[in-house]
Amino acid sequence: MAPGARNGSAAAGVGATLQAIRAAESTTRAELVASTGLARSTVAQRIEQLLAHDLIVPVGENASTGGRPPQAFAFNAQAGVILAADLGATHCRIAVTDLGARVLADESHDVAIAAGPEAVLGWLEDAFGTLLMTAGRSPADVSGVGVGVPGPVEFATGTPVAPPIMPGWDGYPVADRLSRCFDAPTLVDNDVNIMALGEHWTACREWDHMLFVKVGTGIGCGIITDGRIHRGALGAAGDIGHIHVPQHDDVLCRCGNQGCLEAVAGGAALAATLSAEGTGAANARDVVSLVREGNPRAVQLVRQAGRELGEVLAASVNFFNPGIIVIGGDMAHANEPLLAGVRQLVYQRAVPLGTRSLRITRSTLDDRAGVVGAAVMLIEHVFSPEVVDARLAGDGTPVV
Amino acid sequence: MAPGARNGSAAAGVGATLQAIRAAESTTRAELVASTGLARSTVAQRIEQLLAHDLIVPVGENASTGGRPPQAFAFNAQAGVILAADLGATHCRIAVTDLGARVLADESHDVAIAAGPEAVLGWLEDAFGTLLMTAGRSPADVSGVGVGVPGPVEFATGTPVAPPIMPGWDGYPVADRLSRCFDAPTLVDNDVNIMALGEHWTACREWDHMLFVKVGTGIGCGIITDGRIHRGALGAAGDIGHIHVPQHDDVLCRCGNQGCLEAVAGGAALAATLSAEGTGAANARDVVSLVREGNPRAVQLVRQAGRELGEVLAASVNFFNPGIIVIGGDMAHANEPLLAGVRQLVYQRAVPLGTRSLRITRSTLDDRAGVVGAAVMLIEHVFSPEVVDARLAGDGTPVV
Repeated sequence: MAPGARNGSAAAGVGATLQAIRAAESTTRAELVASTGLARSTVAQRIEQLLAHDLIVPVGENASTGGRPPQAFAFNAQAGVILAADLGATHCRIAVTDLGARVLADESHDVAIAAGPEAVLGWLEDAFGTLLMTAGRSPADVSGVGVGVPGPVEFATGTPVAPPIMPGWDGYPVADRLSRCFDAPTLVDNDVNIMALGEHWTACREWDHMLFVKVGTGIGCGIITDGRIHRGALGAAGDIGHIHVPQHDDVLCRCGNQGCLEAVAGGAALAATLSAEGTGAANARDVVSLVREGNPRAVQLVRQAGRELGEVLAASVNFFNPGIIVIGGDMAHANEPLLAGVRQLVYQRAVPLGTRSLRITRSTLDDRAGVVGAAVMLIEHVFSPEVVDARLAGDGTPVV
Repeated sequence: MAPGARNGSAAAGVGATLQAIRAAESTTRAELVASTGLARSTVAQRIEQLLAHDLIVPVGENASTGGRPPQAFAFNAQAGVILAADLGATHCRIAVTDLGARVLADESHDVAIAAGPEAVLGWLEDAFGTLLMTAGRSPADVSGVGVGVPGPVEFATGTPVAPPIMPGWDGYPVADRLSRCFDAPTLVDNDVNIMALGEHWTACREWDHMLFVKVGTGIGCGIITDGRIHRGALGAAGDIGHIHVPQHDDVLCRCGNQGCLEAVAGGAALAATLSAEGTGAANARDVVSLVREGNPRAVQLVRQAGRELGEVLAASVNFFNPGIIVIGGDMAHANEPLLAGVRQLVYQRAVPLGTRSLRITRSTLDDRAGVVGAAVMLIEHVFSPEVVDARLAGDGTPVV
């Protein structure tokens, strides 16, 4: 390790220069001198180092001529790829993205998480390999692997912790296994956390405090505070599906408690109600189809589910004061009936200051929020100043 | 401003060295070289600069002799004082602390916040002046002023925003006024936020995610995440007093909604119930006195209030996954009946992972949480690396 690498001065290292270049669309040496306050010679030295590692590329009309105006540089988003997976209870989306989290190839599959980690991860490794070929890239290009799973995760080790709907996964070293398979940094997080991150990075960067609510079979929430995922003490944050809602103590939830939000307003609960009433609906997607066909009972149930969710979110608004709430997941495809119910109760029940500038909207990334977020999670890690400094410290070139 | 001051390299500046010294009880040059990775000559230079500014002092048996073992240094907590105030609805505590947030002198007064900012702040300026004399210090010693108020605050400007129980304070430049009066940096925040900060700094540093719940006349919550106060989009975070609790829609809250937690379980609500039943109780303190005297109806009401609060906190546990919940405020003096009710509902209703290692406890700082927190808020600001670097950049000595 280079002498400077552990001095806590990451803000002044080469990684910080890369960070500044990534933050700008493109930037010149002079702009970097102005924005970082570093000496001109230091900036020049770092540019050379980053070019040598293919981490940045010359851009603009002067890329070939080298004449005036001065040469600009940009982050080289093509220098590698990220493998991203969003594993749900019954289906899964996988993607290959570039280093700007742009999806190069993706596909979705029916995969039962309950089949256990050996079966699911074995399949995932094969599927990633095939998708890499589809994207025209090789295993050597893989800069990182990001995975979301439908349960709580100990983020530091990438290990599921007591996940209720993932039999066999408790304590399984998911990140370790994938990291070895692809010889690349691997991070694992709760699926709703990565959806929140993807949505925030893509469409909501101007909001520091955001909630992403996934309404599917169940209900969960990803929390962004100061631009970062809030995971809580044990990675259990955002589990709003098991918050108690009034007047439903007759409804038993799969968690063993009565009157949980998810047991009242989740897609599985609505499908069960419709089925019991003689209208065929096996799951959340069927409920959405009925709403789209204009089935009045389905519309009524979804709007009521929106109100139940809105009551819980009103409490979350009072507690957390987010700037924006984004609704995603299968049930979000029901659109206005769901959002109208949510908005009604949030505006009725939350404190006025909490809703003064609050926005409640649908996910823009929709089904891709998870894979984009998984890619963002890896990119932000792999190109963080600390990791870049540490990586480049070992290459023989001076760490400046 | 020195050339290096805006280069974002605060982590490598003299302020960072002071931070490292503050974090340790005491430390030597060699320890600083090891912990920061800086060159020996740089550490020596910074030590000289910090000594010249009285920001650190030599400590230990070698303070006078200079012989072996090597000289240790510590942050000079006596180099100045902080004026701290915790303004409540009807009473106020003020304190003079050293730069380690140790209370040198404090007192509490009956002050009606509803008298408006001119009257209250005029009084506060006089009271601070008198207390400074009591502590044997002069206005020139004041390094900062920290104030908590019972309402939402726009933290960046130190201005109350639409505070429900502070008539005349909306938009009043509290920080500006006090800053001019004492010619010192001044920060203003919500009272519960500073209580949370004081408690966290003093007794709960090992928990990254903490809730501090103030149960007094009303009910509010301070949120600590990753060791810092979470204020939310508009400074409204933690307003749990107006979360809807089931089965109390007949109770009108002062906010105009029905069934708010505070209208059901706050000290004022309990006092009103007891009074209506013929037991004299004017406020939260009277209710606590009755509980301490063993009045069964008061004990019953407080325990039920604990359960109502516990239902709301169970939802907050699912949402936020704190490691510890600290209960403070006047009603916390009721002790076990209140905490038993809280614990009962939190353990009954929160998800198992959320309560696996959750601690629910009473405030250790008690009535002083606010003033200690207000002092901590100022100290953390005034001695942050950025502010120290900027301040020392103007003194003619080189910024290293």
